[in-house]
Amino acid sequence: MQQTSVTDYKPEHFLWEVAEGVGTITLNRPERKNPLTFESYAELRDLFRTLVYADDVDTVVITGAGGNFCSGGDVHEIIGPLTKMSMSELIAFTRMTGDLVKAMRACRQPVISAVEGVCAGAGAIIAMASDLRYAGPSAKVAFLFNRVGLAGCDMGACSLLPRLIGQGRASELLYFGRSMSAEEGERWGFFNGISEQPLTDALAAAKRISSGPTFANGITKTQLHQQWNMSVDQAIECEAQAQAICMQTEDFRRAYHAFIEKQQPVFEGD
Amino acid sequence: MQQTSVTDYKPEHFLWEVAEGVGTITLNRPERKNPLTFESYAELRDLFRTLVYADDVDTVVITGAGGNFCSGGDVHEIIGPLTKMSMSELIAFTRMTGDLVKAMRACRQPVISAVEGVCAGAGAIIAMASDLRYAGPSAKVAFLFNRVGLAGCDMGACSLLPRLIGQGRASELLYFGRSMSAEEGERWGFFNGISEQPLTDALAAAKRISSGPTFANGITKTQLHQQWNMSVDQAIECEAQAQAICMQTEDFRRAYHAFIEKQQPVFEGD
Amino acid sequence: MQQTSVTDYKPEHFLWEVAEGVGTITLNRPERKNPLTFESYAELRDLFRTLVYADDVDTVVITGAGGNFCSGGDVHEIIGPLTKMSMSELIAFTRMTGDLVKAMRACRQPVISAVEGVCAGAGAIIAMASDLRYAGPSAKVAFLFNRVGLAGCDMGACSLLPRLIGQGRASELLYFGRSMSAEEGERWGFFNGISEQPLTDALAAAKRISSGPTFANGITKTQLHQQWNMSVDQAIECEAQAQAICMQTEDFRRAYHAFIEKQQPVFEGD
Repeated sequence: MQQTSVTDYKPEHFLWEVAEGVGTITLNRPERKNPLTFESYAELRDLFRTLVYADDVDTVVITGAGGNFCSGGDVHEIIGPLTKMSMSELIAFTRMTGDLVKAMRACRQPVISAVEGVCAGAGAIIAMASDLRYAGPSAKVAFLFNRVGLAGCDMGACSLLPRLIGQGRASELLYFGRSMSAEEGERWGFFNGISEQPLTDALAAAKRISSGPTFANGITKTQLHQQWNMSVDQAIECEAQAQAICMQTEDFRRAYHAFIEKQQPVFEGD
Repeated sequence: MQQTSVTDYKPEHFLWEVAEGVGTITLNRPERKNPLTFESYAELRDLFRTLVYADDVDTVVITGAGGNFCSGGDVHEIIGPLTKMSMSELIAFTRMTGDLVKAMRACRQPVISAVEGVCAGAGAIIAMASDLRYAGPSAKVAFLFNRVGLAGCDMGACSLLPRLIGQGRASELLYFGRSMSAEEGERWGFFNGISEQPLTDALAAAKRISSGPTFANGITKTQLHQQWNMSVDQAIECEAQAQAICMQTEDFRRAYHAFIEKQQPVFEGD
Repeated sequence: MQQTSVTDYKPEHFLWEVAEGVGTITLNRPERKNPLTFESYAELRDLFRTLVYADDVDTVVITGAGGNFCSGGDVHEIIGPLTKMSMSELIAFTRMTGDLVKAMRACRQPVISAVEGVCAGAGAIIAMASDLRYAGPSAKVAFLFNRVGLAGCDMGACSLLPRLIGQGRASELLYFGRSMSAEEGERWGFFNGISEQPLTDALAAAKRISSGPTFANGITKTQLHQQWNMSVDQAIECEAQAQAICMQTEDFRRAYHAFIEKQQPVFEGD
């Protein structure tokens, strides 16, 4: 089957760079702390939908320019217009933003967020919907929906956040809209690590994953998603089938032969 | 639709006070560490069922008088009679106690427990079934069912507790019946905070939530409940619909206009 | 109904000892860090299936000989042959290994792992699939599947691990294949405790559980399993039925009468 290349993709509303199998998205309106607009939501959604068919990127990193991650939906460009919309227009919007999270969870590439400074609203959601998250000490993650008069349930927050940090802590963040610090986030399991250079950490993690068995990694991602609301026994049968598929890959043979020859395996993703 | 007022509600088996949109339940048999009886279970259940229709209380705080939260089902008034009941009587009882938890999860008001001292059996369940929990240093939370010859599965414990503190820690508490300390509870995500005045903390949290967009908060609560066993994609569609509803509230407009005018929004719950 | 005795069971591929209601499995090929083979997988599966009907063991402890827990599937005896198998043979294998986890979750006896040193691959899965886990400081738990070219989804890992340690930490372990230390495992909720003598801790926990109401403990285990993907309301109804059954046991009466007489209850498991 023909695959798609995203190496030369030129987005309009954010930066995109591909190196060593890692695609990096940089939200890039630093003067406004990288807010999202209708157009950037849609373009992010489309990129993640395209990644399903791409064979030149195996892991995605998301970061923000200028020391902040993302301030969420722009007050002037999004919130203002929303206050004037009809229900059919509103639900078209909430479904589009939800489709971004669906696309992030549906692509085979693990997604890693590098978070510094402001990470609010839809920005907090993008970090939450990633597979891994690295924080700088300045990171402040705020699911601030209820501070703008809305419910905490936005783009999957009531489903994803409790499984990351527990139901009680998630409830507090969603009812208060308060910021979670980097330290809290690490202690609670939201962040996988804190350091002075979270982007370096995220890129190192991405390269590590991209140099692994990338077909199998995609299966891991799919299984983590599929098993969300299965019984344990159903999950075990799913994994029996999925792992049997992976046992017929060349990467499995490569790892075995490398072990026998006391070498490091070199995976090729097939 | 006509709403119900609970401000002047006079319960028989506990104290009830309403101030600034916060209803406070005080379990009040301090000489016995506030045990539950058949009658107090039923009255609590009925109050939470009534709260679904109440428009004068937006958050509920539960506490116990005299330095203890609740010692659970009274040994003389509940355990003794249970040992003599038929199966149909027993299941009527276990369904009634379960109905209390169902009602706590089904009302739109976030429920906040302030826990000091003994918090055992059905008392531990009431704390667990709350949305948020604040502890004093003396708090001892014991799901002690197996110490009285019963299973750990009582009033939803096998479903709710693992999502609060993780499956392994929940298993330990349910198989041992041992007490969880305040410090463990905070570290594991059961408690949202520990201090010398947990009731003050709970009331502050309740006022903070009651001064927010209370219609939207009720939607958050419903969504946290509904999404318990949905797939991620199903949850995202549910949230798209729920949030679109909230975007048609006046509170959303109030927040937007306050932001534009650099003021604090004043929410009114519609 | 006739019950089965496992006290005199003589396994071929591991050690088995029964004392005071506790059955202890010792993986015993210390010179190779206790790897699993096709035969030992099958024999473990069969033992856990037999335990469903056994009345002389109420808790199971799993440990490894010689300072390591288990190094997983033997490279020479399992990985090599797998690289040459057909799909029908592969899926027969992955289903058999999954059946071990299904059997561990389906028996009424809580399972407790005592983990020192290497705990890798299927060894990590066996620890994960236990009800409780105690670590020595040397414990290194590695879900290393992706380091051998496979997916992280093996024997239920994508379902069970996130509920033990959170979705983000589980994702990291499954995508990296890196070791989790004893300290991390305790902090994240994988281990219930760390000490210099994890087997002593595991046996003490097992004896404590075996001296409790063992019929009710089996109901707790079943309910923890059944409720994995139920709604909260469904779970509460399940618990109402399950607890009503336990309220008709003699152990419930024994506990009540012991309390009235200010004595310690002596449970008999009926």
